[in-house]
Amino acid sequence: MADKNVTFADIAEYTGFSKTTISRYFNNPDSVTLENQAKIAHALEALNYKENKLARVMANGKTEIIGVIIPNLYMHYYSNVLDHIISTYEKNGYKFIVFSGNDDSDIERKYINELIAYKTEGMIILSHTLSSKELSEYNIPIVAIEREDKYICSVNTDNYMGGVQAATVLAKSECDILIHANSDFSEDVPSHGRIKGFIDFCESNKYDYKILVKDFGNTYDENHNIIKSLFKEIEDEYTVKKVGIFMSNDTYANILLNIIIKKYGTLPDKYKIVGFDNSPISKEAIVPITTVGQQVDKIADEAMKILLVQINEYKKRKPKPLSNPIHKVLTPILVRRETTK
Amino acid sequence: MADKNVTFADIAEYTGFSKTTISRYFNNPDSVTLENQAKIAHALEALNYKENKLARVMANGKTEIIGVIIPNLYMHYYSNVLDHIISTYEKNGYKFIVFSGNDDSDIERKYINELIAYKTEGMIILSHTLSSKELSEYNIPIVAIEREDKYICSVNTDNYMGGVQAATVLAKSECDILIHANSDFSEDVPSHGRIKGFIDFCESNKYDYKILVKDFGNTYDENHNIIKSLFKEIEDEYTVKKVGIFMSNDTYANILLNIIIKKYGTLPDKYKIVGFDNSPISKEAIVPITTVGQQVDKIADEAMKILLVQINEYKKRKPKPLSNPIHKVLTPILVRRETTK
Repeated sequence: MADKNVTFADIAEYTGFSKTTISRYFNNPDSVTLENQAKIAHALEALNYKENKLARVMANGKTEIIGVIIPNLYMHYYSNVLDHIISTYEKNGYKFIVFSGNDDSDIERKYINELIAYKTEGMIILSHTLSSKELSEYNIPIVAIEREDKYICSVNTDNYMGGVQAATVLAKSECDILIHANSDFSEDVPSHGRIKGFIDFCESNKYDYKILVKDFGNTYDENHNIIKSLFKEIEDEYTVKKVGIFMSNDTYANILLNIIIKKYGTLPDKYKIVGFDNSPISKEAIVPITTVGQQVDKIADEAMKILLVQINEYKKRKPKPLSNPIHKVLTPILVRRETTK
Repeated sequence: MADKNVTFADIAEYTGFSKTTISRYFNNPDSVTLENQAKIAHALEALNYKENKLARVMANGKTEIIGVIIPNLYMHYYSNVLDHIISTYEKNGYKFIVFSGNDDSDIERKYINELIAYKTEGMIILSHTLSSKELSEYNIPIVAIEREDKYICSVNTDNYMGGVQAATVLAKSECDILIHANSDFSEDVPSHGRIKGFIDFCESNKYDYKILVKDFGNTYDENHNIIKSLFKEIEDEYTVKKVGIFMSNDTYANILLNIIIKKYGTLPDKYKIVGFDNSPISKEAIVPITTVGQQVDKIADEAMKILLVQINEYKKRKPKPLSNPIHKVLTPILVRRETTK
């Protein structure tokens, strides 16, 4: 281990500073001028202080590590977003500590405290467990993706536009009734916009519609049972020619599709389905699913950009926190496949 | 930031040691006796040296961070293993930096060097990019999962037994021909055992069998095209009553199932399918897929156990590296579902 051979005395000798100054560099970097910090950092390099990243971290807080908190890896959307976030390494050099929260707020708090203790430079939060108010009080760079974001920066898809797009494609498929199944989101969660966009389109264009609010549960078995009874409900109630169903994500749309195909051996012309996200499953489904696509690659890029703006500010001697959180909204892209033909 | 107020002088005063000793604790901990290291660590706690984890890392190398390198997040097996690895946080307190290698050996080397520079305590490697010889030379605790592992510790499923289980369940379903489709693995990759187990069972029990070796590609589209032509090949060649097909993983088994159902509207009695892994997709498929289950929860636990043995050894003043790598093999569990009924 090369670093064990380089002592404070060596660094002091090389730089001409006292050992006390070197100590202060490691222990309390702000007490050393920026110019001298640079000289010492340079000396560390020159002395082949090979494993010195942690030393530099002590000095300038640059771990180049970001914490990512996702609710789970089961939902295709989350593993897809995670995949894109991790892939930004080649562009930005930042590495990612990943945590799956599983809705336990105490464990999530404990985890965040550890991330902060390790001087993780920022956090990307997809879980819904802690309020943005609480998160903002940690006072480190944060960006939220598709969750309540009043007090923190965020990158979201334009969910309202997504709801409009879904209703439009179902209307164009000549459905007699337009149904949207979604969870019971409060109005401050971005996904709620999908419901609003769907309703507004139907009302202003005078389409029959229905919103089915369900608690879909947290496991595949729970999802499957709820969607099975939801489909039974639809079959019993609608004897019209064509039923258009907009599911709140591709994972659920795929479950619905499988239930229908298991019953009929094919997707009958009577049913049209639209999902949300453009997760890999929508393309890989037995009948490729029409979906309102989130631009996940851009979401990951924008999240990193917003995080880096904050991170660079925090590195200054007297950082000025953002006066207002940045909220970036990306347009969804409708991907037409076979379930609306 | 609480830590900025606590200086070396404060720590020296509290402990009664000289400032030089405190410096040495941070810079070259091995030059301080273990007893005194403990005293200083205790002082840091007592002085509410709140964000002192990095200081302690400098002292004892305990980052409690482990690097995980997976080939991709697209294959259901990898996201499932990752999910279980991450979940060990609650048990062991270790956090995970996750990297998806995408088969680029240069980027993977660069990444591993960064992990080492940050004193990541160990690595769990699922990618196939670098040889175990090269990995062993990094000289840090490593455990491999389901990859070539001659020179490094590993946790694998008993793939030979898995091949036997798959052939057995197809034979019991009264298939006239038993087919196993797999990639062209070299013999030092654990998965190769599946082929061997399958062949040995068929030969010793005198079943007709065929091994189809394919390059399945790296994307869904590539997988889908190869499996589509593979199924056409099978349909053209076998006019016997029942064809049993053992696919090398559940992702591929699900693609095959969807191709068959899209053609027939159902899984005809003529075809029996077995997958491998017991990934969520096997259960969530349109017809739940019989599969040779890897005990992913145990694999994650055992990987952490083997890593912690090595990590604890490395923390000693004079660590003795393992004389031989540990190779833990876990028995697969056949999960009978509807594709072999």
